[in-house]
Amino acid sequence: MSGEGVAVEPSALARRSEAFVSGLQDTICAALEALEATAGQGHKFREDRWERPGGGGGRSRVLEGGAVFEKAGVNVSAVFGDVPDAVKGQMPGDGDTFFATGVSLVLHPTNPHAPTTHANYRYIERGGVGWFGGGADLTPYRLYEDDAAHFHATLKAACDATSEAFYPRFKRWCDTYFWNGHRGEARGVGGLFFDHLRPETASPDGDESFDLPALEAFWRRAGESFVPAYLPIVSRRHGMAFDEALRHWQLVRRGRYVEFNLLHDRGTKFGLQTNGRIESIFMSLPPLVRWDYDARPAPGTPEAELLSVLESPRSWV
Amino acid sequence: MSGEGVAVEPSALARRSEAFVSGLQDTICAALEALEATAGQGHKFREDRWERPGGGGGRSRVLEGGAVFEKAGVNVSAVFGDVPDAVKGQMPGDGDTFFATGVSLVLHPTNPHAPTTHANYRYIERGGVGWFGGGADLTPYRLYEDDAAHFHATLKAACDATSEAFYPRFKRWCDTYFWNGHRGEARGVGGLFFDHLRPETASPDGDESFDLPALEAFWRRAGESFVPAYLPIVSRRHGMAFDEALRHWQLVRRGRYVEFNLLHDRGTKFGLQTNGRIESIFMSLPPLVRWDYDARPAPGTPEAELLSVLESPRSWV
Repeated sequence: MSGEGVAVEPSALARRSEAFVSGLQDTICAALEALEATAGQGHKFREDRWERPGGGGGRSRVLEGGAVFEKAGVNVSAVFGDVPDAVKGQMPGDGDTFFATGVSLVLHPTNPHAPTTHANYRYIERGGVGWFGGGADLTPYRLYEDDAAHFHATLKAACDATSEAFYPRFKRWCDTYFWNGHRGEARGVGGLFFDHLRPETASPDGDESFDLPALEAFWRRAGESFVPAYLPIVSRRHGMAFDEALRHWQLVRRGRYVEFNLLHDRGTKFGLQTNGRIESIFMSLPPLVRWDYDARPAPGTPEAELLSVLESPRSWV
Repeated sequence: MSGEGVAVEPSALARRSEAFVSGLQDTICAALEALEATAGQGHKFREDRWERPGGGGGRSRVLEGGAVFEKAGVNVSAVFGDVPDAVKGQMPGDGDTFFATGVSLVLHPTNPHAPTTHANYRYIERGGVGWFGGGADLTPYRLYEDDAAHFHATLKAACDATSEAFYPRFKRWCDTYFWNGHRGEARGVGGLFFDHLRPETASPDGDESFDLPALEAFWRRAGESFVPAYLPIVSRRHGMAFDEALRHWQLVRRGRYVEFNLLHDRGTKFGLQTNGRIESIFMSLPPLVRWDYDARPAPGTPEAELLSVLESPRSWV
């Protein structure tokens, strides 16, 4: 951590979490660069370090124009300071200062057979209260059921090791959260989403009890499951042949991604309200996007099949 | 007007305004089609008529892939019914029913030398209170000072015929409204913007007095000034040679247009909050858009010059 700001003494868990997300960024970027090396000319991430005026900073890594990824962003940050007025009501706890660390990524492959993916794992403290949040989700342009099943099964295994109640709950939360209400469709085929996870909230029905170390272990396992969940999918899809029509459809669907992120995403809003670094927040936006008037797939096409799945999220495991 | 809904008896002014915006749509579309006919193969607008479940409806006209316009949308609507709860606090008056009619357009030329433009002219009634709103603004990708000066001078002349106080006030309002706060820059080089214009609000200092017929005459003149303000500009720019670098810059800047419309624009929010027709609301979004990470023009380039003007809106007449 670096930067000006009020003195905030992070807990030992906060420091461990910061180290964890930093290591996860390294692991993920190394895996993606290894794929770029086998697929093309070995495109690498560039890194920008930045400081937050109110306290803390981050490390943004971006890879553009690769053989596999048209645009890939993997950020970490650890920020702290006064809780901004605009977000006071949105955070648990009642302290005036906060600490937040997390890793956040969005990967946009060039090939429309390969899905876009997003993941975020964060730990936040306010006053004496700390909680975990995170998840990962998949946004395909062409539906491959085995891809969705593999992604979900990998995340489910990470959940089940702590509690079999987690996956169904966090899967539903993901379907609800990444919902483009103005379109009546999900952003993609889902995955996991959870927030405000701490011992007091981890079992809403009170069927189980979890201490902080158990939740920390779950959170780390979920984060570590990203590479095994996504890499096999992009590895088998990035070299597939595609035509202009499928590329066009991908660009139109990327428009829905932009609509979600700018109209609905709480993370984007939070970033803008807390004067986050614009280029790091908008790293999630796709490299090339289309908006056609009233674009609709013809009935019976794979595009129409994908839409019907997005309109009625289904079970994948 | 058509569609189900509560009975709302529009005033004679409401009916005249509906007829006016409908005629203005015809005039504008005819002028744009005439330009397409001289420039290419005579691309035409397609028309979709739609009904609003709560009352009223509209006529959306779109032209895509023309010789001059990559995407052009010109909508009219006349809607009425119960004031939706979500927007009750945003509208003057205190009646439970409303009537609103307007013409709204966004034109995205293919050629980056030709600016994007937006215009909207509307008349709204709630209970016994009626008001005018509207304006037009210009978003260039390459700055031509004479284009900006012509656009502003034409709008100023339309204002001056009613009051010399209008142009400076509505020009400032436009610079303030179309402000991408998260980027610290204007969406474009401005034009006019006004809202809630009625005899009680037309002269904030009380220096002048305006009756409703005077404001109606101003509003019509402003609407009628759109074609003479914009057409000469696009006519002299659409055939200019451009390279890939300028096209790339145009696509990046179109991203800022999307950011404004989805993050800040009250019209978009109002449309979504009142269950407006999505494809008509999003007709404003550019056809093809880029988001590059941390895209910044090199110092001393025309792109950097444009940015400096957007960061500090200037006087054009």
